[in-house]
Amino acid sequence: MHILIFGAAGMVGRKLTERLAKDGGLGGREIAKATLHDVVEPQAPANAPFKVRTVSSDFAEPGEAEKLVAERPDVIFHLAAIVSGEAEADFDKGYRINLDGTRQLFDAVRNIGDGYRPRLVFTSSIAVFGAPFPEAIGDEFFTTPLTSYGTQKAIGELLLADYSRRGFFDGIGIRLPTICVRPGKPNKAASGFFSGIIREPLAGQQAVLPVAEDVRHWHASPRSAVNFLIHAATIDTARVGHRRNLSMPGLSVTVAEQIAALRRVAGDKVADRIRREPDPVIIKIVDGWARKLDASRAESLGFKAEKSFDDIIRAHIEDELGGKWAA
Amino acid sequence: MHILIFGAAGMVGRKLTERLAKDGGLGGREIAKATLHDVVEPQAPANAPFKVRTVSSDFAEPGEAEKLVAERPDVIFHLAAIVSGEAEADFDKGYRINLDGTRQLFDAVRNIGDGYRPRLVFTSSIAVFGAPFPEAIGDEFFTTPLTSYGTQKAIGELLLADYSRRGFFDGIGIRLPTICVRPGKPNKAASGFFSGIIREPLAGQQAVLPVAEDVRHWHASPRSAVNFLIHAATIDTARVGHRRNLSMPGLSVTVAEQIAALRRVAGDKVADRIRREPDPVIIKIVDGWARKLDASRAESLGFKAEKSFDDIIRAHIEDELGGKWAA
Repeated sequence: MHILIFGAAGMVGRKLTERLAKDGGLGGREIAKATLHDVVEPQAPANAPFKVRTVSSDFAEPGEAEKLVAERPDVIFHLAAIVSGEAEADFDKGYRINLDGTRQLFDAVRNIGDGYRPRLVFTSSIAVFGAPFPEAIGDEFFTTPLTSYGTQKAIGELLLADYSRRGFFDGIGIRLPTICVRPGKPNKAASGFFSGIIREPLAGQQAVLPVAEDVRHWHASPRSAVNFLIHAATIDTARVGHRRNLSMPGLSVTVAEQIAALRRVAGDKVADRIRREPDPVIIKIVDGWARKLDASRAESLGFKAEKSFDDIIRAHIEDELGGKWAA
Repeated sequence: MHILIFGAAGMVGRKLTERLAKDGGLGGREIAKATLHDVVEPQAPANAPFKVRTVSSDFAEPGEAEKLVAERPDVIFHLAAIVSGEAEADFDKGYRINLDGTRQLFDAVRNIGDGYRPRLVFTSSIAVFGAPFPEAIGDEFFTTPLTSYGTQKAIGELLLADYSRRGFFDGIGIRLPTICVRPGKPNKAASGFFSGIIREPLAGQQAVLPVAEDVRHWHASPRSAVNFLIHAATIDTARVGHRRNLSMPGLSVTVAEQIAALRRVAGDKVADRIRREPDPVIIKIVDGWARKLDASRAESLGFKAEKSFDDIIRAHIEDELGGKWAA
């Protein structure tokens, strides 16, 4: 089978590619070829047992998606997006990539029009929800985003459902929790500290906590994010029906619970590397975010996430640190 | 003040125009000018106490919306749409008008960019909801449309909320109930019989009822639809907040209750002009439609509809039949 990934150079895209290279197949079928696309050149995974082609271009330019879809991939992962902060800062760019790019990709598939009907997995976000919301956001709660990014993702979900209903492709949209522990360097995203307070102490470095310890948020590991994508690519969509967009399972924990888990898994010395430094700007942003989702529907369809934050930390230590940390 | 209406040649657009001509003002301000736009030439209302300009063009053509918005109307009513059946039959046309046209209009306002911030009233639809739903669809129920039309309206709602949040205009979206009694000739819309079984008997003609009498649906009169539009154009949107799209109040009645009301208002002879002729196709379509909405939020914001179907019939007799019917 042939797999096409848009957004392959991003963190989740890279982890998905590595997993496919390790598995060599998807849903019991052997992978013959993977096409990795991003605006910057994606890196081909080491030792992939299949042919890998990397392509860099702007997929929102007319004709770009067509070229890649013309090869009739069996599964398309659409992970490409302008992130929240940038989509808010640059209105035109956010709409051009997140809305027009998505629609052009969907239309590229539709326009083949000879019965070609690939599985299309779209990563949406809990940013489709906007405060105020209930303590746990249910599967039937409405989407009233408070960012342009969330708006663009919610529109992508609607298009995905309509194009699937009309038989143009077999789509499924998954709303990812905040990914934690995010590997790599600290970044300036408002959500960065959720990962930073785990990642930096384990690496022997100080981390800054800009919010109160009773702040609650919704997390899943990068490993779970990849599991969601694989499951979405292989699930029997007849079980999903017309409601193609699903809130993924996750773990609702407070910052205090995150720190307690770090203390249990890695010891006091590591957990003591967190410095409290309240930041009113970040406090205000985070206050509007979802704290917990009721992902019953996705769970009943077989999507699974970690059951404890200790497991999320252990997944990070295994996958990113080779099992060792700076004690 | 200057008012611009897209979709002015449609039934609701005509009734809105007549009402504005009668009132001569809106929200306590005198109307100096109205621009009426549609794809066919709209009719100027008789005896309007303000200047009326009629324009016909395809507003989804690049540049068309810009030309009209350049005159900086204070209030824009966006009622233009490809209807449900046609948007389902012609995928490209539906998306071109209902999505691209709407977005181009919104962008035309945004691109003025010098602080111009008109009130923009957008007519959405209960078609944003898709079965299965609860007996009464609440204000926080999610939008999972089962038609391309409903998808396009749901996307319009998301854009309206985001453009309003960012200050490009001051938008409000209203989800209209099925309009009943719809004046004019019988048409082939699946919903046509809801009006037909009242309108035709009052005009001395036989009407066909294609569904069972226990079918329940959500109605408001043309008069209420115009009241909703006027209220949406004049409400203090600070009270509405970021959630700019509202399910309008209506009346949830069964066909049996419609017929009983007709009997009370116009007598047995009129009500006996309804012939039962079950149509499996229409039965199936109507089975997927919303039966009742909980419009608490709109009601708390001052939107009002009829409280009995008798009132809906009386409004039709007064507004369309000059107070008389074929007894």
